[in-house]
Amino acid sequence: MAGNSFGLLYRVTTFGESHGGVVGCVIDGCPPLLEISTADIQKELDRRKPGQSKITTQRKEEDQIEALSGVFEGKTTGTPILLIAKNKNARPQDYVNLKNIYRPSHADYTYESKYGIRDYCGGGRASARETLARVAAGAVAKKYLKIKFNIEILSFVEQIGSVKTHISDSLVTVNKIESNLVRCPDKKVAQKMIKLIEVIKNQGDSIGGIIKTIVKNMPVGLGEPVFDKLSADLGKAILSINAAKGFEIGAGFSGVVKKGSKQNDRFIVKNNQIKTLTNNSGGIQGGISNGENLIFRTVFKPTATIKQSQLTVTNKKKKTIMQSAGRHDPCVLPRAVPIVDAMTAITLMDHYLRHKAQNL
Amino acid sequence: MAGNSFGLLYRVTTFGESHGGVVGCVIDGCPPLLEISTADIQKELDRRKPGQSKITTQRKEEDQIEALSGVFEGKTTGTPILLIAKNKNARPQDYVNLKNIYRPSHADYTYESKYGIRDYCGGGRASARETLARVAAGAVAKKYLKIKFNIEILSFVEQIGSVKTHISDSLVTVNKIESNLVRCPDKKVAQKMIKLIEVIKNQGDSIGGIIKTIVKNMPVGLGEPVFDKLSADLGKAILSINAAKGFEIGAGFSGVVKKGSKQNDRFIVKNNQIKTLTNNSGGIQGGISNGENLIFRTVFKPTATIKQSQLTVTNKKKKTIMQSAGRHDPCVLPRAVPIVDAMTAITLMDHYLRHKAQNL
Amino acid sequence: MAGNSFGLLYRVTTFGESHGGVVGCVIDGCPPLLEISTADIQKELDRRKPGQSKITTQRKEEDQIEALSGVFEGKTTGTPILLIAKNKNARPQDYVNLKNIYRPSHADYTYESKYGIRDYCGGGRASARETLARVAAGAVAKKYLKIKFNIEILSFVEQIGSVKTHISDSLVTVNKIESNLVRCPDKKVAQKMIKLIEVIKNQGDSIGGIIKTIVKNMPVGLGEPVFDKLSADLGKAILSINAAKGFEIGAGFSGVVKKGSKQNDRFIVKNNQIKTLTNNSGGIQGGISNGENLIFRTVFKPTATIKQSQLTVTNKKKKTIMQSAGRHDPCVLPRAVPIVDAMTAITLMDHYLRHKAQNL
Amino acid sequence: MAGNSFGLLYRVTTFGESHGGVVGCVIDGCPPLLEISTADIQKELDRRKPGQSKITTQRKEEDQIEALSGVFEGKTTGTPILLIAKNKNARPQDYVNLKNIYRPSHADYTYESKYGIRDYCGGGRASARETLARVAAGAVAKKYLKIKFNIEILSFVEQIGSVKTHISDSLVTVNKIESNLVRCPDKKVAQKMIKLIEVIKNQGDSIGGIIKTIVKNMPVGLGEPVFDKLSADLGKAILSINAAKGFEIGAGFSGVVKKGSKQNDRFIVKNNQIKTLTNNSGGIQGGISNGENLIFRTVFKPTATIKQSQLTVTNKKKKTIMQSAGRHDPCVLPRAVPIVDAMTAITLMDHYLRHKAQNL
Repeated sequence: MAGNSFGLLYRVTTFGESHGGVVGCVIDGCPPLLEISTADIQKELDRRKPGQSKITTQRKEEDQIEALSGVFEGKTTGTPILLIAKNKNARPQDYVNLKNIYRPSHADYTYESKYGIRDYCGGGRASARETLARVAAGAVAKKYLKIKFNIEILSFVEQIGSVKTHISDSLVTVNKIESNLVRCPDKKVAQKMIKLIEVIKNQGDSIGGIIKTIVKNMPVGLGEPVFDKLSADLGKAILSINAAKGFEIGAGFSGVVKKGSKQNDRFIVKNNQIKTLTNNSGGIQGGISNGENLIFRTVFKPTATIKQSQLTVTNKKKKTIMQSAGRHDPCVLPRAVPIVDAMTAITLMDHYLRHKAQNL
Repeated sequence: MAGNSFGLLYRVTTFGESHGGVVGCVIDGCPPLLEISTADIQKELDRRKPGQSKITTQRKEEDQIEALSGVFEGKTTGTPILLIAKNKNARPQDYVNLKNIYRPSHADYTYESKYGIRDYCGGGRASARETLARVAAGAVAKKYLKIKFNIEILSFVEQIGSVKTHISDSLVTVNKIESNLVRCPDKKVAQKMIKLIEVIKNQGDSIGGIIKTIVKNMPVGLGEPVFDKLSADLGKAILSINAAKGFEIGAGFSGVVKKGSKQNDRFIVKNNQIKTLTNNSGGIQGGISNGENLIFRTVFKPTATIKQSQLTVTNKKKKTIMQSAGRHDPCVLPRAVPIVDAMTAITLMDHYLRHKAQNL
Repeated sequence: MAGNSFGLLYRVTTFGESHGGVVGCVIDGCPPLLEISTADIQKELDRRKPGQSKITTQRKEEDQIEALSGVFEGKTTGTPILLIAKNKNARPQDYVNLKNIYRPSHADYTYESKYGIRDYCGGGRASARETLARVAAGAVAKKYLKIKFNIEILSFVEQIGSVKTHISDSLVTVNKIESNLVRCPDKKVAQKMIKLIEVIKNQGDSIGGIIKTIVKNMPVGLGEPVFDKLSADLGKAILSINAAKGFEIGAGFSGVVKKGSKQNDRFIVKNNQIKTLTNNSGGIQGGISNGENLIFRTVFKPTATIKQSQLTVTNKKKKTIMQSAGRHDPCVLPRAVPIVDAMTAITLMDHYLRHKAQNL
Repeated sequence: MAGNSFGLLYRVTTFGESHGGVVGCVIDGCPPLLEISTADIQKELDRRKPGQSKITTQRKEEDQIEALSGVFEGKTTGTPILLIAKNKNARPQDYVNLKNIYRPSHADYTYESKYGIRDYCGGGRASARETLARVAAGAVAKKYLKIKFNIEILSFVEQIGSVKTHISDSLVTVNKIESNLVRCPDKKVAQKMIKLIEVIKNQGDSIGGIIKTIVKNMPVGLGEPVFDKLSADLGKAILSINAAKGFEIGAGFSGVVKKGSKQNDRFIVKNNQIKTLTNNSGGIQGGISNGENLIFRTVFKPTATIKQSQLTVTNKKKKTIMQSAGRHDPCVLPRAVPIVDAMTAITLMDHYLRHKAQNL
């Protein structure tokens, strides 16, 4: 258990390197009798895949998914689901010149120090290509949660650099998110974001931003007290995504200037149901979902790979100037949206099964 | 495994309710031959205990720790360590009037919905009293890390409301942190914070803030790739603390406006060691510690319990006005500092053992 | 996680040494709303406690259990249950002369080699006193399974030395098992066993035997395929008991001489239910319970501590003759019966929750 | 985590069905820098594969292994190792007639009851074909243990029906085990076993037996106290193999008639090392290895599939007579030998890493 699995009951184990044979995952614990097809999964993968548009990397990867076990006559059987995508565009030779170089803000130095060896091709195991396996595992969970609870997971780009949308939660829909290249449901702001990314790209530079996630139709009771609070496990899930550097739930960091009397979420009765008047808690109280929308935000740093040349050192401790090959995203956020969705779905699925085991 | 354990190899399981018999923990996996006394642990607990000063709750709890197994002739034996504090100040009768009321932004409603039952005395299991067990388990880890690597974990209050210190990392010491009631190492700002808390207290209100953590003398190589990144596990550890609503590492949310060319941490050679010129990564790259200081921040919301009366509902869905009994912290941050230290120590200890198992 | 926990969803962690402050356990994952009292638990503990009769050790231990968390107004709350028994009869000074001696077939040598330190008082953590914590945790599970499924767990002494009962499964009842000192439901054979144990005791020697377990009213579907087969997890549970040296399910070792055509369990329909005509499988097929009685056997070696003097070595590698203090069981089996019951109950409870999570 | 993973630190997750796309495993936690080739693994797989000889099934499967991640330039990298064998001989149509039939002593009935669905082709996930993945994962562990400690794992067929060898442990070698079809290192007894299997095969019947395992060059200190005793984890590992119905360590069931004074293993000093004069403990005391040879036995029931027609029922509760297609092993033991070796290697590897984490 060296960090390649997530979840206790809906357990996802990923494998594969950027330029090895395959990338994929095993899902252990998916309930039986869920109707699932590779098309269900491919749809989510296509949102993540490179080469989608002018603002993402021009690297072309088909990322064709195959389901090689755990599905029988179109339904899950309760046994492990193996999902695999072959690496068709592997170009290990592109990386030979980076073999001895530690790229700034990449995992080259830490991997080599930790293990005494590293696969230097395209980041090896540290490559963001690993996230395609997460999106695949998340697609299965997402379908289950949709059928069972009508749960909708809506991640979108809220901010790129200092360009930000203030769209109301109630107006956010999948269609609006998917209506533009940058996955911002606010059409005008989306255009500004796209322009900003193009400028950054032309500078050979990169930029970060914030993804906001809204989960609608949440059941009450997901999350375990103390260490496995839903907020804590979501935080871990999201912070395990490459380039994620911060996570906040509900009012989050902005809550620092608001007093308790203003920030407390008053309980009310609405349609004979207990609800809260405000949602500064972000849908989680005492670590357990309260049935309000789940609201959280994730900050992503700018892509570490940039076109500009950079000063760094080699593994022999010599100074050097490095130059990247060129196929990279100037901004990871549009492609990170389905990854955040996936990690959210996996976490909710896992907590639903845990809640069911003990309480339902 | 209903969420009451943390860690894979240094595994801490806590138990106990606010007004039950005891609060404590079992540590399974602590290496043998560590010299440990209850005094080592009591020192950290005293930083957390209520009734320390005019800006914390006036509730008096002795929180006397007992080590009832796993320690023999002053040393750990490699077997489970049981640490217990009896609840001497239990006043369950104080809470009978809250039996049927869901306090705003507390866990009353979610616990009762999840389990169909709740211990309504002082928050029961959801009470922050549970964190004393974390501080105890963290004290053992802290001592081990100090002896083994000279690791120093320095959490402190960086911001209360809008009062904030900009003290340089290199000036932060334990002594400065402990030199004032609010645990801010910047004397002048500390005085402003204390005044602010007093004002808030007099208003019968509460306020939140930010704790910054600096870990010095970090070894290289802690953290597992993919899901158990050090950043992800630290995030989970910290977000599992009551009232924590956000976590960021290194540049965090502020990095959103900084381009990659500025935010990347250039590698350099210093004293024949590979170091980084800047530390926007917060000491973690690819999920693994790179030997730079670990830097992260946690935001805490204002205490949910306030003296002012509040509108809410009962478990019979009736509107009601509630009034708190009165012994509460107007601001949790000064007492949260040792809890953040503890969760950091536990996480680092666990990752050190994991790294050792596979790689050392 | 250094081996002191058992179960994934009904998770029992034990702590404590023979002559330390306490022995006990934390149960994490027990469903809420189970009515439980210390009397329910004490009843099982009394079956295990020393000093019950002339054929068990004369050591007196009260083993009074206290439930210090997780139970509120007589019901479980879904949070961790802490069960503790204080060590009232601790006599560490009795063991000073054994400080440097490795007793034959005890854990002294392996513990000291593994950890570099050992609590030499009464076996420390390796003492069978640890099993009282298992019996306590098992009592809670046993009650749950009884209420939910009317499951009856019937362990009994089938063989001591070469004295053996051939009682039919259908005749075994709790009352018969508890009707005599040796816990063999066959009155005549029980008398022979008691006599044999008395002879062995007078010789200053010890003797082993076999415990058979029958579980009635088993639900279909408990057990996970592949590694966590019910048979595999039961095997682990039982083999983790001190002095257990073998485990077999259904026909077990005796099946070696029986051909497939004779050993296969033919399916039949009885009262409109699918049943098997024979039960050589012991109630488990493909690792999953099939609704027939669960049948398994455990062999226990003779107690390692005997009154006769023995040759051995010291930790300085010197030959020595050792003499035991005297309070020991000449045969562990009568007191092991409730321990086998407990580990069976814990395993079934855990598998029920796992089955429920994924499938029910 | 629905039972498809084994091990805490050397964690093996298997996937795949008998007639699906692939069978294989992911190993998470293998230390880096181990030189490993598919040839190392294939060698072990070839011992397990069907169609080896006249006494095993005539089904031909190539079981060609591919290592698709975690190995770089011939060495492990510390990241997940994916091992896959494609199912080339899949003949799902052979099984359509068994779609609605519950075969006696197979997993058909329990799987369908548990999940509400089952892959009826060749046993689906319950097929012994899954064990090839274990053998692959075990081959990696075996190589590591051989290089690190010179550990030799020697499983062999000790008994088939009532034909049994009494070969001395010191005479058992890999070469002798591999010198005949039945994997019994005692040439004369091996010939009798082969003849017995041929007779049974001609009767259209099947037969079980006992595999004995000797592990030489064991380090002291493997195994965790209490629940994760080496004996308990080995027991689980072995009992999770299809058709295993019993497990005993050291003297095991035969110890029932031997008094403590005879069964205790006296400590002695030999070549300045502490050893035991006898080894009734089977190399494990207090759950921890003592450096003596590990000795255990496993009983396997006769293959459930036999050529003779059998009475059974359908999933509509109708009586029926079933006839097997024909390609099956009359005795699983010769092919089970490498599986027992593999599970032993995986367990020892896992416990070595656990011991290293806490103590070395």
